[in-house]
Amino acid sequence: MNFVAALNEAAAKNLRVLEDQIRQSISEDPFIFEACAPLIRGGKRLRPMLFLLCANAKADCPPEKTMPLATALELIHTASLVHDDIIDTSKKRRGVETANSKYGAQIAVLVGDYLFAKAFQLVAENNYGSQVQLILSKLVKNLCVGEIMQDRSLFVVPTMNDYYTRINLKTAIFLSSCCRLGAIVAEMNDREIDNLTAYGSGLGLAFQIIDDLLDFFGDETVTGKPHGGDLKSGVITLPVIRALTVSDNAAQLEKIVTRDNVTTSDIDAAIKIIRATDAVDYCRTRAEAHIDSARINLPLTLKTSATLALEQIADFVVDRTR
Amino acid sequence: MNFVAALNEAAAKNLRVLEDQIRQSISEDPFIFEACAPLIRGGKRLRPMLFLLCANAKADCPPEKTMPLATALELIHTASLVHDDIIDTSKKRRGVETANSKYGAQIAVLVGDYLFAKAFQLVAENNYGSQVQLILSKLVKNLCVGEIMQDRSLFVVPTMNDYYTRINLKTAIFLSSCCRLGAIVAEMNDREIDNLTAYGSGLGLAFQIIDDLLDFFGDETVTGKPHGGDLKSGVITLPVIRALTVSDNAAQLEKIVTRDNVTTSDIDAAIKIIRATDAVDYCRTRAEAHIDSARINLPLTLKTSATLALEQIADFVVDRTR
Repeated sequence: MNFVAALNEAAAKNLRVLEDQIRQSISEDPFIFEACAPLIRGGKRLRPMLFLLCANAKADCPPEKTMPLATALELIHTASLVHDDIIDTSKKRRGVETANSKYGAQIAVLVGDYLFAKAFQLVAENNYGSQVQLILSKLVKNLCVGEIMQDRSLFVVPTMNDYYTRINLKTAIFLSSCCRLGAIVAEMNDREIDNLTAYGSGLGLAFQIIDDLLDFFGDETVTGKPHGGDLKSGVITLPVIRALTVSDNAAQLEKIVTRDNVTTSDIDAAIKIIRATDAVDYCRTRAEAHIDSARINLPLTLKTSATLALEQIADFVVDRTR
Repeated sequence: MNFVAALNEAAAKNLRVLEDQIRQSISEDPFIFEACAPLIRGGKRLRPMLFLLCANAKADCPPEKTMPLATALELIHTASLVHDDIIDTSKKRRGVETANSKYGAQIAVLVGDYLFAKAFQLVAENNYGSQVQLILSKLVKNLCVGEIMQDRSLFVVPTMNDYYTRINLKTAIFLSSCCRLGAIVAEMNDREIDNLTAYGSGLGLAFQIIDDLLDFFGDETVTGKPHGGDLKSGVITLPVIRALTVSDNAAQLEKIVTRDNVTTSDIDAAIKIIRATDAVDYCRTRAEAHIDSARINLPLTLKTSATLALEQIADFVVDRTR
């Protein structure tokens, strides 16, 4: 299932406008454009589209009130990817060579910083006010704390609580902030704002769990990344956590995942061990639980078309292949 | 001459309050505190103190209106240093081991991002409004563009225009923004705001020129960095640009500075060539010209004590040894 297929006609039109705005936002400096254009191209736009869908969920919100912030959200996401790629020493992202691999860590750090700053500039220029600025700055801070947490416990099996704390900081807070910002820009009431935030939070937890699953079992031609990348960089996720609890070969699996020089055949062995357990179903079940929690939080006051689109995005998150 | 000696009593008291606020701002997360505390410790606080001096230059401005923004300015500066140290692969900064060297590039990227985000959070929380946010985000953007410009022309002799563009983006815009923000927070009139901005701009150009001079000729026990660090990393600055124009050994100097594997004896040779020319005086003369331009821009409407302090900071910038 394609993400864009989940969008109603108005949202699909917004997506086209957004693509233009994103391109424009990085075209101030030719080198920045050159470095970012490939990274910008392949994105799902999940974060800004969630924001736009929420902002337009009760009544149409004028584009000048939504587009700059939607663009800022995608820039922040892209900036975090650029900096992640330094951290992961990844060579590919969204199927293309990373800024880090192409220009070196130096430039990648600066390009990411530029995108963060540009995002905050867009928000300041368009007078979104302190409440919006605060949500954005905290979101970035939480991203960093989540990544730092991850980076300081590489090759260590996390507790379930540590795993959830990390995916909350890294993903769920971001997605819930997008929904919250949409509701705020649309001037919804406090209950609607909180409910859309809860929707985004459930969506975000599910999204990251599925992402962690796809890292092992996704179609490489679709994800654009080789299997077991997380394992290779020492990030231990839910499929492993589950397999370690139930597998007969838990000891062997633990040995592989806590060793900091994993080979390709180690990864194949780990995947085989995980696949022999109920880990895939277990992860799916958890993801579906979060999606159901997201769904019941959708305010009843939304337009039918908006509710439908937000429900279809929820479906997309668990059904997607990348 | 010590920078703090340039401060009047009220400013010196503000500096003590500022130190507390900076420490507080990074104490939310114990690891962030551990990673940043050494970097935070040694700073001159030139940027926030310029802001505070300008904000209090006509009448006392309440600390709750100034301290969060002053702290944000130092956090942005520190974040840019942390990311610079990745770029420079520096081992030492302000005489202590860098975050990059101690924790690796991964953590250093995230610590820098965290500090940027924290700065924007402080500004949002304290309702400084869009004008302030815009100045801050543009300042960060300009820092990045300046660094990118530098990084893309390593081991290449810049034109005088390229050199000035770079030091403007990297330093002068930052310092002038600090002064501008002080004037804005103090609700000065447009002419005063523009004049204090011009003061900061002249100060910034002079500051960077002296910095570039100190990189060659500074007292290593005071700067905390070995001589010729810029040259080693391929950054060609005013002393070299001048020496290349006037030295009899220009050809030899050019060979050294455009070679990307400079040895310690190369650096010694370059320093000897530069020292044999008028480059040091030439740089000082230019710096003094910018300081004089800064000085004449000081609004006549300021308190005598504030004018005196801002003039003494101007003196400090050219007389300093680090």
